[in-house]
Amino acid sequence: MKVGDRHYRSIWRDAQTGAVEIIDQRWLPHEFNCVQLDALQDFATAIRDMWVRGAPLIGATAAYGVACQMARDPSDAALGDAFDTLHATRPTAINLRWALEDMRALLSRQPESKRAEAAFARADQIADEDVETNRLIGLHGLEIVREIAATKAPGEAVNILTHCNAGWLATVDWGTATSPMYHAHAAGIPIHVWVDETRPRNQGAQLTAWEMVGAGIPHHLIVDNAGGHLMQHGLVDLVITGTDRTTASGDVCNKIGTYLKALAAHDNGVPFYVALPSSTIDWQVHDGVAEIPIEERSGREVTHVFGRGEDGRTQFVQISPDGTPGGNPAFDVTPARLVTGLITERGVARPSRDGLLELFPERRNAG
Amino acid sequence: MKVGDRHYRSIWRDAQTGAVEIIDQRWLPHEFNCVQLDALQDFATAIRDMWVRGAPLIGATAAYGVACQMARDPSDAALGDAFDTLHATRPTAINLRWALEDMRALLSRQPESKRAEAAFARADQIADEDVETNRLIGLHGLEIVREIAATKAPGEAVNILTHCNAGWLATVDWGTATSPMYHAHAAGIPIHVWVDETRPRNQGAQLTAWEMVGAGIPHHLIVDNAGGHLMQHGLVDLVITGTDRTTASGDVCNKIGTYLKALAAHDNGVPFYVALPSSTIDWQVHDGVAEIPIEERSGREVTHVFGRGEDGRTQFVQISPDGTPGGNPAFDVTPARLVTGLITERGVARPSRDGLLELFPERRNAG
Repeated sequence: MKVGDRHYRSIWRDAQTGAVEIIDQRWLPHEFNCVQLDALQDFATAIRDMWVRGAPLIGATAAYGVACQMARDPSDAALGDAFDTLHATRPTAINLRWALEDMRALLSRQPESKRAEAAFARADQIADEDVETNRLIGLHGLEIVREIAATKAPGEAVNILTHCNAGWLATVDWGTATSPMYHAHAAGIPIHVWVDETRPRNQGAQLTAWEMVGAGIPHHLIVDNAGGHLMQHGLVDLVITGTDRTTASGDVCNKIGTYLKALAAHDNGVPFYVALPSSTIDWQVHDGVAEIPIEERSGREVTHVFGRGEDGRTQFVQISPDGTPGGNPAFDVTPARLVTGLITERGVARPSRDGLLELFPERRNAG
Repeated sequence: MKVGDRHYRSIWRDAQTGAVEIIDQRWLPHEFNCVQLDALQDFATAIRDMWVRGAPLIGATAAYGVACQMARDPSDAALGDAFDTLHATRPTAINLRWALEDMRALLSRQPESKRAEAAFARADQIADEDVETNRLIGLHGLEIVREIAATKAPGEAVNILTHCNAGWLATVDWGTATSPMYHAHAAGIPIHVWVDETRPRNQGAQLTAWEMVGAGIPHHLIVDNAGGHLMQHGLVDLVITGTDRTTASGDVCNKIGTYLKALAAHDNGVPFYVALPSSTIDWQVHDGVAEIPIEERSGREVTHVFGRGEDGRTQFVQISPDGTPGGNPAFDVTPARLVTGLITERGVARPSRDGLLELFPERRNAG
């Protein structure tokens, strides 16, 4: 998407040097910084410390991390090291494992002399496929938005609530949850987005709101507490979120707090959609609450908040007293029973094993 | 409760001068400042701008505000002005109206020469009654905590989740939701409190956590998004919140986000209790969602967060991009069907008209 006049992806290769570059998302919306990743540890740090985040983008970044490692040392040992190092960065998102397994399977069949080239070609392909996948998700989601718009008075906005950032910054481009918004906006359908701030790391306030400003889409930032009230009063027409891992039964593991919004949507008859590339589906896992490991992050993310001070300097402020520890589970699981539909690149699936297999019949014998 | 070695209430009269003093809660937990309130506008500002907050404390503060006005000008006009000015400060909490109506009814029967004295006497009485009410709430709540503790292994803590600050800082002393915690802790029952941060104003992080540190009660600060996940994994034994207004049918209007926790508690079979002095019951209102006006506060409370910077200075930081407006409904309504029980000064009521009337039979002909 555009930043100012220039089109960006969230990860790309420099046209001249071939070097891998990313938007360092830690400083948004206050500073827009791009950085070059080179050594394996650069990639591991960028994923673990959330310079990049979002399941699809993590996958693409990991693929490029393997490629850079192959350019440096194409041995089996280095390939194994790249896999292990990158896999250990974030435990919840399934795309990370998916991309790493894909790369390993491809590269272990190649002679060492060909590995670097093959790895970069495949990483580029993963990035391009992600863009196309998200474009298709947007087109399928657009139809849902269009149907709701048709029930409204002319000019009346469709109110969409989203949690966290499943935007173009969480993918290579377009985003998952935001892709229907971008497509609807481009199609001239009036929309208004309720952006959940998404504590503790405020990806809604920092990233989704920044995307909405950039795209000129009307929106309000709200606290994570507000969505239920807005739904009780008819101010939300639908919810669209992303997912870090989707089970074969349609349970959705996404940013902490997603489950609470799904409960409220269910209680108020508001459609609750989850947008996802099929690479986030973990066909081996069925019961999300019981089976998916939930990353526990530093309590400091809870006790300290990042922002821009009155003097213009970005910094962290401590919101709580000394002596209060933070508890910080990073994801929760929304059971399939609370999900209206899963918007994939192949269409909208019912959130159940049968629903998913209808769209992905090649998985019928898996898991 | 104690602050350091000294016992404080949240509002009191100076023993020598009789002046009304409060803890200016805006700067907690980073600074502990007490200020004297004198003119009617001081009281209105203190309530509107949340130097004091919490339904019971707002009521007591308003009563003292009327008393100070009577000392200055005991005329009917001044009494009416005090009522109107203070009533306009916050629209949702019912105690405010309750305290003001109580004071007006009392004072309008008094000759002007007696009004100041009578007003201070009644305001003192309202404050003292609040303390006793909250002590009784704590004793009734203690029994609930004790029953859960009896199902645990010896030494294993009862995990209590609370939202916002219904602590001693929200009342004159003891608090409502916190009173059972203080009583349980004093009785040697091991408890652990999950403190919801409570965006946008972070009363959990700033006030409840500060109370827990002060009392030495084990606790963790969590983001408002986390409670559902904790309940899914059996890490919450009960929820206790306060309420700003309770309908005659048992609906509970409390800090925004309470409804989401009640939904999660219901979905996971976790008991959800609301602690309240009966002065928060609005016997005229039945359907909370439809009938209670919800205060919409400044969007700046959403886009800016208060804390202590790395240099030790307290300040606000902006978390979102320029160009993003904040939406800020301050309360939501939890329907009675999601509430396990209402802990009042007379005991625990079922959340229904019949349940409330069993404990408050004198209200049978009201509303």
